[in-house]
Amino acid sequence: MRVADLAHTRGVDLVWQPFLLGPIFQAQGWATSPFNLYPAKGRYMWRDLARRADRQGLPPVVAPEPFPQNGLLAARIATLGLEESWGPDFIRGVFTAQFARGEAISDPACLAAVLSSLGVDAEESIRRAQTDQSVKDKLRAATQHAKDLGLFGAPSFVTADGELFWGDDRLEDALDWALMTAK
Amino acid sequence: MRVADLAHTRGVDLVWQPFLLGPIFQAQGWATSPFNLYPAKGRYMWRDLARRADRQGLPPVVAPEPFPQNGLLAARIATLGLEESWGPDFIRGVFTAQFARGEAISDPACLAAVLSSLGVDAEESIRRAQTDQSVKDKLRAATQHAKDLGLFGAPSFVTADGELFWGDDRLEDALDWALMTAK
Repeated sequence: MRVADLAHTRGVDLVWQPFLLGPIFQAQGWATSPFNLYPAKGRYMWRDLARRADRQGLPPVVAPEPFPQNGLLAARIATLGLEESWGPDFIRGVFTAQFARGEAISDPACLAAVLSSLGVDAEESIRRAQTDQSVKDKLRAATQHAKDLGLFGAPSFVTADGELFWGDDRLEDALDWALMTAK
Repeated sequence: MRVADLAHTRGVDLVWQPFLLGPIFQAQGWATSPFNLYPAKGRYMWRDLARRADRQGLPPVVAPEPFPQNGLLAARIATLGLEESWGPDFIRGVFTAQFARGEAISDPACLAAVLSSLGVDAEESIRRAQTDQSVKDKLRAATQHAKDLGLFGAPSFVTADGELFWGDDRLEDALDWALMTAK
């Protein structure tokens, strides 16, 4: 929700990169989100998210049911949208649907509503996201690239010199690093 | 390293509370530190620590070998020191020995050196920490209390109204909360 505005303000070029967390969690030996696997930590993380959303003036956090949602179709549509102009707005729309309204983003109807709200042809975009081999391949390659970069969660920020920052609470640090190491 | 100065500056009363992480990790199903259990996350956490120490003007982080160290004796001595006047200095000394010099705090000689550097009778304090039943009981009760409060890591900060904050990067938030909810 914050990265595009903040990067723009700070003069940092931003490249969005959707990827799948599932295979990355599996590589850590996690069959689901660590929020679910470790209840004490999970309870805290939801509380921490709620406090941070409040401080940032974002709507209250509502966890979708079940959590985590299957985000495969959303990630494919985002991959497609980033080839066009509506990727970032779609990503923010999906986050708002999932974590402010608690909607099931595994449901194509939810994603269609986000697309329509942006004036994008929902039916056509969902069809292409589900059938275009190039979209599938791109997302698969992005997920492998994320693994190769050492990512283990989202959001993550990787600077041009390969420095990894994990979590919304490291966004400012990532931007500082990008500026500090810019040629 | 930061909490006492910052709490003092902000006008927040601070109560130190040593506890044992081992039993808390075991309750999550972790036989050792999650830094070790999840290598990608562990590599990142050490890197994140190094960057944060650098930004805060602290010495470079040196991991002790092995990590984590057995901190039982250190926690008992800290419990004793907090009944006297040298607890906070001892805690900071142990952190510096362990994470700036990479020393083995499981070694009583390391802890004796920290105590001596503070002008505390090392032999007597170590003897009391190892033999006083009241010290052992206090630490055991503190560890149970930490579990009851939902703690799953360290450092953690709990405000008077029971709000939990985890990690050095939430220290400022914890102090803000304490001030906001103070009667």
